[in-house]
Amino acid sequence: MSTRPAAEVGMPLDAVDTPALLLDLDAFERNIARLAGAVADTGVRLRPHAKSHKCPVIALRQMASGAVGVCCQKVSEAEAMVYGGVPDVLVSNQIVGAPKIARLVALAKQARVAVCVDDAANVAALSEAASAFGVRLPVLIEVNVGAERCGVEPGEPALALAKQIAASPGLRFGGLQAYQGAAQHIRDYTKRKGAIDAAGEKTRRTVEMLGHHGLACDVVSGAGTGTYRFESASGIWNELQAGSYIFMDADYLQNLGPDGKPGGEFEQSLFVYATVMSRPTKDRAVLDAGLKALSVDSGMPRVAGMQDVEYIRASDEHGKLTLHDPGRVLSVGSKLRLIPGHCDPTVNLYDWYVCYRGNRVEALWPITARGAIL
Amino acid sequence: MSTRPAAEVGMPLDAVDTPALLLDLDAFERNIARLAGAVADTGVRLRPHAKSHKCPVIALRQMASGAVGVCCQKVSEAEAMVYGGVPDVLVSNQIVGAPKIARLVALAKQARVAVCVDDAANVAALSEAASAFGVRLPVLIEVNVGAERCGVEPGEPALALAKQIAASPGLRFGGLQAYQGAAQHIRDYTKRKGAIDAAGEKTRRTVEMLGHHGLACDVVSGAGTGTYRFESASGIWNELQAGSYIFMDADYLQNLGPDGKPGGEFEQSLFVYATVMSRPTKDRAVLDAGLKALSVDSGMPRVAGMQDVEYIRASDEHGKLTLHDPGRVLSVGSKLRLIPGHCDPTVNLYDWYVCYRGNRVEALWPITARGAIL
Repeated sequence: MSTRPAAEVGMPLDAVDTPALLLDLDAFERNIARLAGAVADTGVRLRPHAKSHKCPVIALRQMASGAVGVCCQKVSEAEAMVYGGVPDVLVSNQIVGAPKIARLVALAKQARVAVCVDDAANVAALSEAASAFGVRLPVLIEVNVGAERCGVEPGEPALALAKQIAASPGLRFGGLQAYQGAAQHIRDYTKRKGAIDAAGEKTRRTVEMLGHHGLACDVVSGAGTGTYRFESASGIWNELQAGSYIFMDADYLQNLGPDGKPGGEFEQSLFVYATVMSRPTKDRAVLDAGLKALSVDSGMPRVAGMQDVEYIRASDEHGKLTLHDPGRVLSVGSKLRLIPGHCDPTVNLYDWYVCYRGNRVEALWPITARGAIL
Repeated sequence: MSTRPAAEVGMPLDAVDTPALLLDLDAFERNIARLAGAVADTGVRLRPHAKSHKCPVIALRQMASGAVGVCCQKVSEAEAMVYGGVPDVLVSNQIVGAPKIARLVALAKQARVAVCVDDAANVAALSEAASAFGVRLPVLIEVNVGAERCGVEPGEPALALAKQIAASPGLRFGGLQAYQGAAQHIRDYTKRKGAIDAAGEKTRRTVEMLGHHGLACDVVSGAGTGTYRFESASGIWNELQAGSYIFMDADYLQNLGPDGKPGGEFEQSLFVYATVMSRPTKDRAVLDAGLKALSVDSGMPRVAGMQDVEYIRASDEHGKLTLHDPGRVLSVGSKLRLIPGHCDPTVNLYDWYVCYRGNRVEALWPITARGAIL
């Protein structure tokens, strides 16, 4: 059920079989250093989201550069991180149902594990299970700060839940989860900042209200790759959850900076390596990488380094290219790198990162939490 | 790297953890019987596409109902089928690059394996590798019959390639691959039939031209779930590759029949089981099944049995529902079944089918070729 890696360590890049998930180690390492440097003097902790990479090797690299731990969305992801050596995990999500709650509280005996809630019955279930396992589980309240997905409303609803948590024997009130996910891909810089400013006001008001009732928010967590500079400068959030910054993707690359230009401060380090498997006409080529090799939910991939070649359609096992320059040489067997439209669900299709530096494969990292949705 | 199953055999359906890939065995078995019955008297062979299910258990069920073998798209899929007991596989796709070609011809020593081509250099590479392994590989020519993806044009280009194959020591000319993929999801019945009629004319003309040159097409393969009745009645095709009929999906369910009504002759048997993890407002619920639990390339999933509940947006680990009926009871912890927008790439996200009959889990079938893209 696990797949073979598409490469061997030491081989040149162009010998890697396809489709393969490539990681450019130089760019990846610069991205890690860049975010670590950007938050170093802000007094804000970095807790990158592991749902982007699903790989304990990468989590430990992030911690070696100053991260305090990682976020996960699923218990099975958290298990993969803890058993891969990560000592501190925030499950930045609601965990519902007896089997998952049992695994969550059991995991909290093996590492520092916290979870988020937005429902009173869920709080009761967590407390009961934690007590049964003899742990005291830190619990953050997810507040809806504009994403209109999960979370209680700011203010009173959060206060009511915080009081319940504080009174629950198996739980410890840990703070707020205030992630404005809908802001991450707002293209315009000013509008993106405005969304975080609005989220910040809702968060600040809630922190203050809880404080007036003696409920201190040790952790106020949020931010993504698209907005982390706003949260880190706000004086409101004290933990950042950015994840995609290590890889980037075609969607994030379209965000505009304060100068109105796209691209941003991080480099594309993640690629899907693909081979031309058919070249039927002058303006059409077909790749061996389709829906089972990349996720198109946020748009088609881009062809790296070839602005005249456009990936126009993905079917299950094929990617159709339009060649806009009749002089472009691209024959059957040619390999090229694609920039995925959306990195997280693309990574979830692979069991291995093929890590390369320059033209040489340097490592194969297992994507231990691939498919970890339970 | 393999994931735990979400269920145990014998448990009631509502005890299955989520997200899980559910297979309704009664509906699945009826679908298999229905297609087998529909082609039984046509004189046309059935070779279902295994890219839909990626599971040798299912392939063997199809063969037990009369299928002559299966199709695959990738060598690694074919390996999973052969080593899972399937004796006859057509790789209905181009296989490019020395490592994959070596694996393909080696596999042809272990089972009946054929492949498709649309390129002269690829034919030469296949012949050389087949000769080196001492096999004679049956090769079909993929003809572009309207999908505008891979394939040579009908007529002369196919003839040139057939002559080359016939003259290649490691190869045997096997016939034509004439799949009109673009026709499968044409909603209107008459237009869909028209696309297959046009593909049929191109195919017939090519078969005749090859015949005049002494090149007999033993196999003329094509058809999908959306069009197989047209191909089987045409007198042109003699093998059908339909795959999705065993499962169906929200996309196929929108095809209209000759009576102008949607739905068609096959039943939905494949579901993603999901749990309500958050219920923040009266008209909003959030499921634990997002982009990592289902593929949205062909549209959002439908909620089975709840026409008033709409799945409006998938993010990585969340599915957002809009509840149009204020009376709908759906609380945190409630479980429901989703009809995936597109079955093939959804199956590719899971390691296990949770097979149930009525309200009881009856089997866990491994999705052996999950992630098999090499």
